[in-house]
Amino acid sequence: MQLGLSVSDSDVSSFTPLVVLELADDTKAEAITWLLNRIRDKQQNGGAELLVNQLLFPAQDDQKPNPNVFLVGSTLQRLLNGAEDVGLFKEFQDGTMRGFTYANRESFKDFNGEIFLSDAECQYIIKHELDTLRAKNEEHVPGYPKLKLYPGKSVVRRLQSKGVLIQYFPLHNKEDLKRLSFSWYKKFKLSFQPLDDIRHYFGEGLALYFGFLEYFTFALVPMALIGIPYYLFDWEDYDKYVLFAVFNLVWSTVFLEVWKRCSATLAYGWGTLSRKKAFEEPRAGFHGALGFNPVTGREEPVYPSSKRQLRIYLVSVPFVLLCLYLSFYVMMVYFDMEFWAINIYNENPDIATSILLFVPSIIYAVVIEIMNLLYRFAAEFLTDWENHRLESSFQNHLVLKVLVFNFVNCFASLFYIAFVMQDMVLLRQSLATLLITSQILNQVMEAFLPYWLQRRRNKKVHKRMRRLMGDKELPLLGQVQLETEMNTYLGTFDDYLEQFLLFGYVSLFSCVYPLAAVLVVLNNITEVYSDAFKMCHVFKRPFSEPATNIGVWQLAFETMSIIAVVTNCALIGLSPQMKAYFPESDTQLILIVVTIEHVLLAFKFILAFVIPDVPKHIQVNLAKLEFDSLEALKKRVSTHLEGVSGGLNATLSKHYSTKRIRLQ
Amino acid sequence: MQLGLSVSDSDVSSFTPLVVLELADDTKAEAITWLLNRIRDKQQNGGAELLVNQLLFPAQDDQKPNPNVFLVGSTLQRLLNGAEDVGLFKEFQDGTMRGFTYANRESFKDFNGEIFLSDAECQYIIKHELDTLRAKNEEHVPGYPKLKLYPGKSVVRRLQSKGVLIQYFPLHNKEDLKRLSFSWYKKFKLSFQPLDDIRHYFGEGLALYFGFLEYFTFALVPMALIGIPYYLFDWEDYDKYVLFAVFNLVWSTVFLEVWKRCSATLAYGWGTLSRKKAFEEPRAGFHGALGFNPVTGREEPVYPSSKRQLRIYLVSVPFVLLCLYLSFYVMMVYFDMEFWAINIYNENPDIATSILLFVPSIIYAVVIEIMNLLYRFAAEFLTDWENHRLESSFQNHLVLKVLVFNFVNCFASLFYIAFVMQDMVLLRQSLATLLITSQILNQVMEAFLPYWLQRRRNKKVHKRMRRLMGDKELPLLGQVQLETEMNTYLGTFDDYLEQFLLFGYVSLFSCVYPLAAVLVVLNNITEVYSDAFKMCHVFKRPFSEPATNIGVWQLAFETMSIIAVVTNCALIGLSPQMKAYFPESDTQLILIVVTIEHVLLAFKFILAFVIPDVPKHIQVNLAKLEFDSLEALKKRVSTHLEGVSGGLNATLSKHYSTKRIRLQ
Repeated sequence: MQLGLSVSDSDVSSFTPLVVLELADDTKAEAITWLLNRIRDKQQNGGAELLVNQLLFPAQDDQKPNPNVFLVGSTLQRLLNGAEDVGLFKEFQDGTMRGFTYANRESFKDFNGEIFLSDAECQYIIKHELDTLRAKNEEHVPGYPKLKLYPGKSVVRRLQSKGVLIQYFPLHNKEDLKRLSFSWYKKFKLSFQPLDDIRHYFGEGLALYFGFLEYFTFALVPMALIGIPYYLFDWEDYDKYVLFAVFNLVWSTVFLEVWKRCSATLAYGWGTLSRKKAFEEPRAGFHGALGFNPVTGREEPVYPSSKRQLRIYLVSVPFVLLCLYLSFYVMMVYFDMEFWAINIYNENPDIATSILLFVPSIIYAVVIEIMNLLYRFAAEFLTDWENHRLESSFQNHLVLKVLVFNFVNCFASLFYIAFVMQDMVLLRQSLATLLITSQILNQVMEAFLPYWLQRRRNKKVHKRMRRLMGDKELPLLGQVQLETEMNTYLGTFDDYLEQFLLFGYVSLFSCVYPLAAVLVVLNNITEVYSDAFKMCHVFKRPFSEPATNIGVWQLAFETMSIIAVVTNCALIGLSPQMKAYFPESDTQLILIVVTIEHVLLAFKFILAFVIPDVPKHIQVNLAKLEFDSLEALKKRVSTHLEGVSGGLNATLSKHYSTKRIRLQ
Repeated sequence: MQLGLSVSDSDVSSFTPLVVLELADDTKAEAITWLLNRIRDKQQNGGAELLVNQLLFPAQDDQKPNPNVFLVGSTLQRLLNGAEDVGLFKEFQDGTMRGFTYANRESFKDFNGEIFLSDAECQYIIKHELDTLRAKNEEHVPGYPKLKLYPGKSVVRRLQSKGVLIQYFPLHNKEDLKRLSFSWYKKFKLSFQPLDDIRHYFGEGLALYFGFLEYFTFALVPMALIGIPYYLFDWEDYDKYVLFAVFNLVWSTVFLEVWKRCSATLAYGWGTLSRKKAFEEPRAGFHGALGFNPVTGREEPVYPSSKRQLRIYLVSVPFVLLCLYLSFYVMMVYFDMEFWAINIYNENPDIATSILLFVPSIIYAVVIEIMNLLYRFAAEFLTDWENHRLESSFQNHLVLKVLVFNFVNCFASLFYIAFVMQDMVLLRQSLATLLITSQILNQVMEAFLPYWLQRRRNKKVHKRMRRLMGDKELPLLGQVQLETEMNTYLGTFDDYLEQFLLFGYVSLFSCVYPLAAVLVVLNNITEVYSDAFKMCHVFKRPFSEPATNIGVWQLAFETMSIIAVVTNCALIGLSPQMKAYFPESDTQLILIVVTIEHVLLAFKFILAFVIPDVPKHIQVNLAKLEFDSLEALKKRVSTHLEGVSGGLNATLSKHYSTKRIRLQ
């Protein structure tokens, strides 16, 4: 019985496994041989030039383990070249961030230090190299005549979309993980999250999410602090919320503007701010008839945009509208229940019936969560069926579908109570129940449940391993087997969505229920811990994703803050306090409120326009970079004129001596 | 007596004068010698490597001509190198637009054709080379100990700001000008303007203005066509304007979205769309204590931003507010006059007094124009005094100041009449008078007056020349003397401002005066001719300016269109027609109008977000460019690996074989 690595490459000692590649256990041998050869092949032959070793699990009695698990690693030289390929930015000697180039490697800070490329960066580079491993002249995957290939098609994506490649994921680094989790959530003291460490381990995308979560929580603290005395002393005085609404209005505007600057500062420090976006490949699931890509001129599947439009407008849009209708219908049922509960309470007011008052809201909150969940699956299916060519376009359509529905589903009843029924007591009660119930449900669904499932699975694996090998230490083998069976983290979508809805509750209606901010702060503090825990111990390690900002969510939050301005103005207009000022005519009150609202909206846009998105000192650094490259470009002219008859070589070196000047 | 050129360079035959450089006539000889040497010096010595010849005018009896007039030209080789420096985009063999490089010159379309670089491009390149001629180790301009220099300071800007260099401007090309003016405005037939020819002769900035003017005029035609029957049949039926307001509302939104696409198409065809902005130099007038520039690290004048802020907030802002107050005061005086005129008419209604009714409006329109003019000078003075470092920042502050005042000055009375007095008859009359008067004034001020002055001057020069030389033909000498004395065209600012105000009249209030669109169309047709004429014959030829879009004006027009939505909704709400639907309560009407307005604004933003700013086929072309450079980057990896021990040279060629691949 062979245990551990079957080493097929020469240098065993230097092999650090970074990425796990799992193929289906019935994969044909010739396909495996072909794939491994392509991965190992030299770059000039079109290979990825990475190291791959098969991981052989010991055979077990009860179930046969998958024999087709491979570990991928790389030499340092290859990783450095890859870092240049993916356009990694690193800190230069002078403290600015610059695009890494192999030729200038010595000029980068810490190049000769212990860790120049973090684990996450290495894994990202390997993922990029695997993803861009392209078919040459193969017509199909060896052994699978139906798995057609054409020159330039990404091999890994084809294998993945057809189920031959089950998954590939980065391995955890146990030591780093221990250190990270200790500084992140194991010590209970008041401190910021170790965002740089998180970024080192999980990449920029996730670190930005946690940065946003932290920022949002801190930004809510003043509102929570104002909310508590409001709640304690003015609880029954519904008239006093005008001041609080004004505060909300200013807060929601400033909040997002400041975040943009924070986000730019973080992204600059991580080197993603000036990084260019890579040319986007088609999604793994994209399909179509072979045609010519107008951009690359290559033969590849093409799907007519008109067909996609038809699918969107004839199926997706009606479906979304139907769901919205359903959501309204459920809302109406909820109001019926509400009236029924109130009637019972009015007939016989005691403790039991006063508890009953909250039951409809709780049921409604649970139903909302379930509908959101079901809709999410449907939206993903539909968006996939729309067959978008690019992942970004897929994501945009998915986010739009989900946001519209979630917004209506969560807030429609509150808007109805506030502006149609104009019942502020019911609004307050409804908001509180919705908020608390959905928070509890969320924490259970997203942290405790997966944790519990994962623990059960862990125990089973541990038991199996122990039975097989006694007390022999086989850390790598056990680790791979454990992590292979962990759930996959599906990205920050759900986490941002939750924060988006919380932001909505707080910015739209917190003036009538000042405790909302307090609840959200409490929720977010536990959220940090549970999210941190779930990233470190419940899910597979995700590939790091270079992110410059929170992307489409910035837009979503900004839209919400505009809606918040309108809503808060309307709530102010409805307040008895304001009505007291204009006892004789509603018209005047409405006109004044509308005017104020327009001024505020104008002010908001001017503010967004005037506040620079990138802080001054980072602007200076970016300008410095640009200036340097322009200077270098100017110098080349004199270089060129000196050796004017140097032919091709001189012409070449003339063009981009940006690098040469630094080398000299 | 020596006439014509004093040729100091060897190749007389190939010298085509492109730019005229006029120094003060008392400039010290050593300064002239130094400047000419710096301009003629080789590039590796820090010179501009251009050709310069002195132009000697014959001495005259009555007045001594300026002896310090120089003609600047260049060799083709130098121009091609300069084209690469300024980052010119040209059409490639495959029809896409690519950054010109000297090494690849043969691969560009028409490179061996008759004209590869247009006159305007050559002049722009020469301007760029002159502007970036930098001081080396000179401490001051020779002969002028007070004209301090420091390494890196632009020589031309220093000379210009101290009045030694009076002006430099590009020469007209008589033949091209004749051809252009013939196809542009000399044939009276219905056709589009020759935008490509305009761009060739005057550059992208001006061509975009004329493109916008044409587009705006055509876009107004449907509105004018609807307006005429409205005017003829519903003139006295004030109720019917709801439909027209709805049309305006949609029109003003679609108008700007479509223009963005047109502008992108034009800019792509002219090669400015993907061109990168050059690193911006400080303005000629910028001054401050010597310090270190944080970006370049060089010693140069630095002016603390806090001081500038103080000047802006303590002087400029109060001044603008004062002017606005003054404008309101004048408006109130106008209303007094108006009432006085109406009273006289009511007492004694005959023809004389009915004409008198229009007098206050006409006076007010004239006063508005005068105030706008005076304010413009004050705003320029103030913005200059604020001492902005960059021209773009100067322009933004100037545009903001001028726009705010012009908007209030021109529209405040109309808003007051519409929404405070709610007098639609007066609004209509006021709008008509304002519009017609300001159009007439504008045409006189901007075309006829300068033309008349220029003709007088031309005649004088011609007479002088004839007296001196009899009938001898000295085309160049005469041309230079004529053009030196022409007025300088100060940029498209005033032209855009006029269109902006016209757009305001049309989009805000044309529903109550349907003839407004007709008047603006008529105005713009004459505007095309008068602007074309003034560019060709009244002003000095301006340097071409590469422009990607209409810049800050796009934002200004968009802001106006948002205001138009709000205004039109309010006008609809005020209409008797709408009031008839809600006879019992104003409240309901207002709420409905406000709701519709919000929906329309939301729709407008969604529309702006959904319609891509760049048409599909241009996006594909841009993506193609990007893809090509990425592909080349990938190929270099294999190139690099083949010659891994090639040292520096291989590393260099590795980096950017974009060009090499095309060469092979």
